[in-house]
Amino acid sequence: MKILIDNKEKKYIVKNEEFHTEKGLITKEDIINAKEGDKLKTHMGKEFTVIKPNINDYIELMKRKCSILLPQDIGLVIGFTGLGHKDKVVEAGTGAGASLLSFANIVGPEGHVTSYEKREEFAQIAKDNVKQYGLENTTIKNKDITEGIEEEDIDMIFLDLPNPWDVIESAYSSLKIGGFLAIYTPYIEQFQTVHKVLKKNGFKNIHVREGNIKEIEVKNKGSRPNSRMAGHTGYITISRKL
Amino acid sequence: MKILIDNKEKKYIVKNEEFHTEKGLITKEDIINAKEGDKLKTHMGKEFTVIKPNINDYIELMKRKCSILLPQDIGLVIGFTGLGHKDKVVEAGTGAGASLLSFANIVGPEGHVTSYEKREEFAQIAKDNVKQYGLENTTIKNKDITEGIEEEDIDMIFLDLPNPWDVIESAYSSLKIGGFLAIYTPYIEQFQTVHKVLKKNGFKNIHVREGNIKEIEVKNKGSRPNSRMAGHTGYITISRKL
Amino acid sequence: MKILIDNKEKKYIVKNEEFHTEKGLITKEDIINAKEGDKLKTHMGKEFTVIKPNINDYIELMKRKCSILLPQDIGLVIGFTGLGHKDKVVEAGTGAGASLLSFANIVGPEGHVTSYEKREEFAQIAKDNVKQYGLENTTIKNKDITEGIEEEDIDMIFLDLPNPWDVIESAYSSLKIGGFLAIYTPYIEQFQTVHKVLKKNGFKNIHVREGNIKEIEVKNKGSRPNSRMAGHTGYITISRKL
Amino acid sequence: MKILIDNKEKKYIVKNEEFHTEKGLITKEDIINAKEGDKLKTHMGKEFTVIKPNINDYIELMKRKCSILLPQDIGLVIGFTGLGHKDKVVEAGTGAGASLLSFANIVGPEGHVTSYEKREEFAQIAKDNVKQYGLENTTIKNKDITEGIEEEDIDMIFLDLPNPWDVIESAYSSLKIGGFLAIYTPYIEQFQTVHKVLKKNGFKNIHVREGNIKEIEVKNKGSRPNSRMAGHTGYITISRKL
Repeated sequence: MKILIDNKEKKYIVKNEEFHTEKGLITKEDIINAKEGDKLKTHMGKEFTVIKPNINDYIELMKRKCSILLPQDIGLVIGFTGLGHKDKVVEAGTGAGASLLSFANIVGPEGHVTSYEKREEFAQIAKDNVKQYGLENTTIKNKDITEGIEEEDIDMIFLDLPNPWDVIESAYSSLKIGGFLAIYTPYIEQFQTVHKVLKKNGFKNIHVREGNIKEIEVKNKGSRPNSRMAGHTGYITISRKL
Repeated sequence: MKILIDNKEKKYIVKNEEFHTEKGLITKEDIINAKEGDKLKTHMGKEFTVIKPNINDYIELMKRKCSILLPQDIGLVIGFTGLGHKDKVVEAGTGAGASLLSFANIVGPEGHVTSYEKREEFAQIAKDNVKQYGLENTTIKNKDITEGIEEEDIDMIFLDLPNPWDVIESAYSSLKIGGFLAIYTPYIEQFQTVHKVLKKNGFKNIHVREGNIKEIEVKNKGSRPNSRMAGHTGYITISRKL
Repeated sequence: MKILIDNKEKKYIVKNEEFHTEKGLITKEDIINAKEGDKLKTHMGKEFTVIKPNINDYIELMKRKCSILLPQDIGLVIGFTGLGHKDKVVEAGTGAGASLLSFANIVGPEGHVTSYEKREEFAQIAKDNVKQYGLENTTIKNKDITEGIEEEDIDMIFLDLPNPWDVIESAYSSLKIGGFLAIYTPYIEQFQTVHKVLKKNGFKNIHVREGNIKEIEVKNKGSRPNSRMAGHTGYITISRKL
Repeated sequence: MKILIDNKEKKYIVKNEEFHTEKGLITKEDIINAKEGDKLKTHMGKEFTVIKPNINDYIELMKRKCSILLPQDIGLVIGFTGLGHKDKVVEAGTGAGASLLSFANIVGPEGHVTSYEKREEFAQIAKDNVKQYGLENTTIKNKDITEGIEEEDIDMIFLDLPNPWDVIESAYSSLKIGGFLAIYTPYIEQFQTVHKVLKKNGFKNIHVREGNIKEIEVKNKGSRPNSRMAGHTGYITISRKL
């Protein structure tokens, strides 16, 4: 898989096969031989640049049937849990695989990410997405995580579910001493319940945070926070087994 | 190096030697043999638990002579640049090594982080900090990065400097096609200059963001955003060589 | 003038004349005799309630050809300057008259608001809007305020102009000792210039503030900050002649 | 009562009597004859300027035994309810009288503010504060508002109480058609209960808002949001009897 970008900054995922565009085609051979930074031309002369396939580009372009976590929320989970190479991660629900791919890209070949998704269709889409990107350190289970986490000695568990409180007890068993549980919830009532159940199950260092990322437009007429900003995404509750 | 935690959640870095506390000592042998999750007791009976040495624990406890970037800002840089294992990173200034350690922990043994620090004393502290943690994928250069970046084919460059604009031109040369430049600045006037110089040097997808992370206190008397919250830390400007 | 509301909470301004709706009409006599709280029926049976004509209802419904200041920004100006009955206010530019009406509604018959608007069409619309609402403590001048403020002994001056810095010197002369100058600007570069010129002209207690009013949706499925929130409106710089 | 300010911008309330300072005294005669803008000198030569007694200056300086509402929160209540001269207001609890004074300063001699305070000591302090400022359009009742609101045809009711839900039913009876109920609460759980009880009692146009006022420091080394900012104060829930 490669990512091409045209001169209007539009990006395309291309597989190792002929690439068809409105302005002509690029041969399979050209695609296969292309390296990062190369310029490829269609037979009609339109130029594309091969760029390093960044995980965020891929997540933006991959197939999905649901909304996905934003880079800012995934980044906050990574920043506050100190996720790194070699770590073992469990997460649910998989959705299209955005957080799965982000975590797998970080933990690398010595680490592993197991993702639970109870909806078969979504699990299949995520499997296809992971396969196309080429990461080999993931397992997608078409199972309901509220029935139990099978993995042990986990460094970080991430939950993006409507009812994360039903997983907290088994999350505690699965985590290493020092491991983190990160829970993303859009609603206030959800973090209130999560907080209560975390305390009851012995989790420590419980922090509920809300990330308000403001984008600042810098234009000729002046700079100001973007007034169409994303606003609220969700609350991130991070706690620890100590 | 190991991290111990007592029953009041206070954490300690211990080296492979006898560990002295106010409530007695733990022998060198016990320290060396300890595994994650083990409970160690001093000769006076005080108990410590060995936890997985998380990078954030270490950064919190390590030696420093300056303020350090917060996990939220490091997380946002990671989230928006899609940093992952195998990536090659350049950064400046090193300071005590907080962002260096965070990035190195992510890029892993197949990646590398080179950090420029012109103040000799700080470079030495950072070298000691990295050595103690045991990461072997870093290089700390006691050099002024405004005199030029020597590395090439870089995936991500991160700058936390008073005058980042002086590095933008050489950052452009050092980056791969598709690579990211992330610049952290506390002041408005800084991102205004940074934005101008980025545009002039051909950077694309320039985004200036401000992260306002709100912590919500959940207590018996009620929940509310913490009124002693950290507030503003800085602006993060991320752009790309395309 | 009266304000009627139907059972879907839609509001209507009615003058002392017959009121036509899609569901029939209400006679002039009924309108004239109606008191707050009365229910009026069209000849086809649709019911309307007469409500106290609140200034915000009126501003929402009145004629305009431009965007208007939001209640939150007007409220912050009032809150931080302590505006009250009897105060003498000068403001520019008038626009449709939203801030003029809000201030006039507060300063009352013993106070006065003079508003400068250089565009004749806007000045006329604002005059019509004020006349219809029935406040008699205002003067709208079809003049460019940058050519000088003619009023003296003013308690509060409010500027919502592209170039407020051109008015700062004459604002200083017009204000009482202890009076406030409040300046609303959407852009960062504007408050930077405003701040500089305020200091140069001897203003004290200079505060630049940004109001981020978050609305929280409380629904059956849960509560959360509205994700389509208004976001940034502008910066409010308030200073004082001391 | 007059307000004097020294050359370090420190303000003083002075009554019509001799004014003693560390740097000498000002005679009763000088105080009584002083007009806004006059400069007064102590016998030792220290100079004070007489400024217009702004309501916020007075609130800042007056006697109190409790925390008071900030100008920003009072301003948002005024802005969103469109409070103006002639309005009839009821509020509770009085505390030191900060919101009482702010509202009374706006509604003027044709309006009135009735304030309920069940703690006798607080009621007395507030009475003294109002008397010293000289507003004659207020009534402070040393009563528990949860036992019923005695006033009728009210334009705006403001509650700053631990249990505002106990007042919602009687607030509905007291308000005019079109009148507003504004409730200030620091905690999330409070606005959740308030919202439920408002709906049950027939209130319309219910809006829960959180005001995050950011102050921006403009200094020589650069501008940035103040990192010691106040942060969260409370939630303001405004609804209407329609």
